[in-house]
Amino acid sequence: MDARAEVLLEGRWQPSRDGAGEFRGYDPATGEALAPAFPVSGAGDAQAALAAAAAVADELAAADPQRIAAFLDGYAQAIEDDAAQLVALAHRETALPVEPRLAQVELPRTTGQLRQAARAAREYAWTEPTIDTAAGLRTHLAPLHKPVLVFGPNNFPLAFNAISGSDFASAIAARNPVIAKLHPSHPATGRRLAQLAHRSLLDAGLPAAAVQALYQLDNADGLRLAGDARLGAIAFTGSRGAGLALKAAADAAGVPAYLELSSVNPVFLFEAALRSRGAALAQEFVASCTLGVGQFCTNPGLLAVPQGAAGDAFVAAAAERIGASAGGVLFSHGVREHYLGALAQWRALGARALAGGEPAEGAGYRVRPALFEIDAPVFLAAPGLQAEAFGPASLIVRVADAAQAVAVARALDGQLTGTLYADADDREARDAVAATLRPKVGRLIGGRMPTGVAVSPAMNHGGPFPSTGHPGFTAVGLPAAIRRFAALHCYDHIDEAQLPAELRDRGPAGLMRKIDGRWTTDTIGAQA
Amino acid sequence: MDARAEVLLEGRWQPSRDGAGEFRGYDPATGEALAPAFPVSGAGDAQAALAAAAAVADELAAADPQRIAAFLDGYAQAIEDDAAQLVALAHRETALPVEPRLAQVELPRTTGQLRQAARAAREYAWTEPTIDTAAGLRTHLAPLHKPVLVFGPNNFPLAFNAISGSDFASAIAARNPVIAKLHPSHPATGRRLAQLAHRSLLDAGLPAAAVQALYQLDNADGLRLAGDARLGAIAFTGSRGAGLALKAAADAAGVPAYLELSSVNPVFLFEAALRSRGAALAQEFVASCTLGVGQFCTNPGLLAVPQGAAGDAFVAAAAERIGASAGGVLFSHGVREHYLGALAQWRALGARALAGGEPAEGAGYRVRPALFEIDAPVFLAAPGLQAEAFGPASLIVRVADAAQAVAVARALDGQLTGTLYADADDREARDAVAATLRPKVGRLIGGRMPTGVAVSPAMNHGGPFPSTGHPGFTAVGLPAAIRRFAALHCYDHIDEAQLPAELRDRGPAGLMRKIDGRWTTDTIGAQA
Repeated sequence: MDARAEVLLEGRWQPSRDGAGEFRGYDPATGEALAPAFPVSGAGDAQAALAAAAAVADELAAADPQRIAAFLDGYAQAIEDDAAQLVALAHRETALPVEPRLAQVELPRTTGQLRQAARAAREYAWTEPTIDTAAGLRTHLAPLHKPVLVFGPNNFPLAFNAISGSDFASAIAARNPVIAKLHPSHPATGRRLAQLAHRSLLDAGLPAAAVQALYQLDNADGLRLAGDARLGAIAFTGSRGAGLALKAAADAAGVPAYLELSSVNPVFLFEAALRSRGAALAQEFVASCTLGVGQFCTNPGLLAVPQGAAGDAFVAAAAERIGASAGGVLFSHGVREHYLGALAQWRALGARALAGGEPAEGAGYRVRPALFEIDAPVFLAAPGLQAEAFGPASLIVRVADAAQAVAVARALDGQLTGTLYADADDREARDAVAATLRPKVGRLIGGRMPTGVAVSPAMNHGGPFPSTGHPGFTAVGLPAAIRRFAALHCYDHIDEAQLPAELRDRGPAGLMRKIDGRWTTDTIGAQA
Repeated sequence: MDARAEVLLEGRWQPSRDGAGEFRGYDPATGEALAPAFPVSGAGDAQAALAAAAAVADELAAADPQRIAAFLDGYAQAIEDDAAQLVALAHRETALPVEPRLAQVELPRTTGQLRQAARAAREYAWTEPTIDTAAGLRTHLAPLHKPVLVFGPNNFPLAFNAISGSDFASAIAARNPVIAKLHPSHPATGRRLAQLAHRSLLDAGLPAAAVQALYQLDNADGLRLAGDARLGAIAFTGSRGAGLALKAAADAAGVPAYLELSSVNPVFLFEAALRSRGAALAQEFVASCTLGVGQFCTNPGLLAVPQGAAGDAFVAAAAERIGASAGGVLFSHGVREHYLGALAQWRALGARALAGGEPAEGAGYRVRPALFEIDAPVFLAAPGLQAEAFGPASLIVRVADAAQAVAVARALDGQLTGTLYADADDREARDAVAATLRPKVGRLIGGRMPTGVAVSPAMNHGGPFPSTGHPGFTAVGLPAAIRRFAALHCYDHIDEAQLPAELRDRGPAGLMRKIDGRWTTDTIGAQA
């Protein structure tokens, strides 16, 4: 077996300073441990990472945005050049299919995000310059001048990886150093990405410590790191429990925490829509619920379905499809335990199992998808039924009428998404539910399943607490996602020569600026 | 004496539900208690306010922005019509001069802010619509659909009052109900404003419970209220201790907290500037330090001055002016106690008193301004010297060279402002200090004192923790200040008829929207 892997700290690969232990990735398909072993970092690595990142923060903030863009573009290219190896590593550690998921969907999404971030950096698109010439005031969004600590999730080994995903790209675009806390379920994928990032960073001539990576920390060390006032922000994608603990630590230190937590992504199906195309909707729903073995932030985990014949037919068709599904392999032993535990809790709280849910036969972390059903009054009386069963499971809440559907919407926690399937004849019920659901969700969806989060400037992958830590920000979509990692900086009667480029009389070519109340690309003081 | 004042709850004036006690305003010039007595609210009033505000939040969010604007404009007019009485009440409760401060400066600033907020509401200027027609995504900033709890400070009885200031105007412009926690040092002013706000609200046809006001809460009740998950946000202007306690309560409930806390607003004076115009700078500094008896968030509380003849001359001139100042009346017994205590702490930590600081003769809360001096190494070794002495006091830190000035800048906590006074010959030292100071402050100022916060779209009255709770937002300047009270809402394949006005194909007239990557006022789908 290989020696224990090195960590990327202080701009170079080096052995962990800590003897806190080691861990291994596992092949989810077999449950077998993989080589090499990776170190569990402790206070030594964490403090070294913080000190090194803080030491280069001002230099990175002052770097030419062209150089930042060159790094992000170069890194995207390096990922493409290394695609075969990256995809193979990610497949082995996550059991996600090579085709189409990893090779055709997730890797291009990753490089596309990095290139969009490069473009935003190059064009200053995230800086929102606002100028009042009469008052002598010029304000923009600026780097934090502090490191951003990114915790990556298990479910996107490339596109949300702490060292290559949207949080990473956004924090770098705003010229902040990143300390990436990789996910322990795919350490070899993370290491490979870190190698590519490190080389691309050096190629671009940026400070070598601007990107660092730790594989794993125990809980106490993770909380201590997240609560260090030298940080400019933390970003976390994962479970509600872990995220809220990190948020509490960051809050206490005055460090903004951007979380993307669990969500059951309620889907409301209305009577006329079910009557006209119930079988097709059952197919669409089951495909979405089981996509990626259900391991999506926007998996449809809760459906509101009317009582009566059309609802019964939909539920029966969905149950048949779920029951016929072979199931799939979850990311880890822990994810599987959580999934089976959540289903057991649904059962204990009165939900009826319509199909599946039992552990599947065979090796590794295989499970069957699951469909449960409950009546709205029972659901409304048991808030525990809102708990996310991360994986291919949905809970159908049967509603007697529009008022009960509204009551279900009203009872929901904050969510990333909420979906409405309605035909023209459903208008009254749909409008009532929509009015209640709208402020509960970040993205309100009409007639399509919530899985599939487009990387668009108009995306909101966010939502009210506790689906995220703040309702005003998105984790996906550029340049908007960059705003999380920016500070508002005002210059009051500061000479032109001391201003950042985007606030000078002649701004960067093509950049829209709000000057004296008017959006314009004009140069200040130029003749008309 | 009058009966105890009523509170504005649930859309009407009513006696407090709570027997938690009562309090009175005081005339700062005499120290005498004023009539009437005001109730200290407890859990009864707080819960009633929360329930009533939450109950109208959706209705207010759905209100026509024209109606919101009509309320804000009508309220501004009502304040102007009532100016004589308002100014008299504020003068009696704060001892701030009627002319020019209250009548010519603060009241017009207040009505100006309300009218700018009205305009932002009417024009949808704060909603930042972003549309991706190919992806079917339309996103904007929307109301929180939850109440905003505003805690007002003591130092602007009109322009930052919880029921008439920037936080109030911003939260209302985003169509959120406001629960105003008035400041107990000017309850009669707050009551009068609440009466005008209430009438203007009814005139505009908005829900009567959209604006409520409580005079006072004890600490435990205030923390309980700030930590209620039914709130959409809290806004607080005041002391660091109180603000951080409220932030902790709000954080735990997932409620964003916008704080504007203490700041010593460091001013760096450089050698050549002092040589060329030291006497004028001493005059300018003392005028800023003693303006409003020093009771400004942006009061220059810390000066870095070079050792040597030019610095000595500046310090001597400033000390002479401070020593000759008659002083003034602070807002309250508590402010005076805090001021004298902070000066005692400076003294205990080794600062030399150059002038003033002792309690002044006469009745009421009168004090003398104060100037202290310390050498940079002592300052750097004693973080307690950074504590704000709210009032007309400044601490001069004598620096041996540019490196020591940079060290002072590096040691500073986050600040609202930082100022540089430099001539051409100071360039090298100035650039070194500026680079260190820039990320520590919200507003970097060239050659003018920090007091005076223009209400401009390009203002940043914000800064890094702990001067505020989040570095990305400003408390002053519209429409930017509104963003604090908005949620990001995305519509994904939602029919035109169900979209909010600013996201429909034809947007509000003149509104700039980012459509398919281009800023434009165009209608979507219109022929070119």
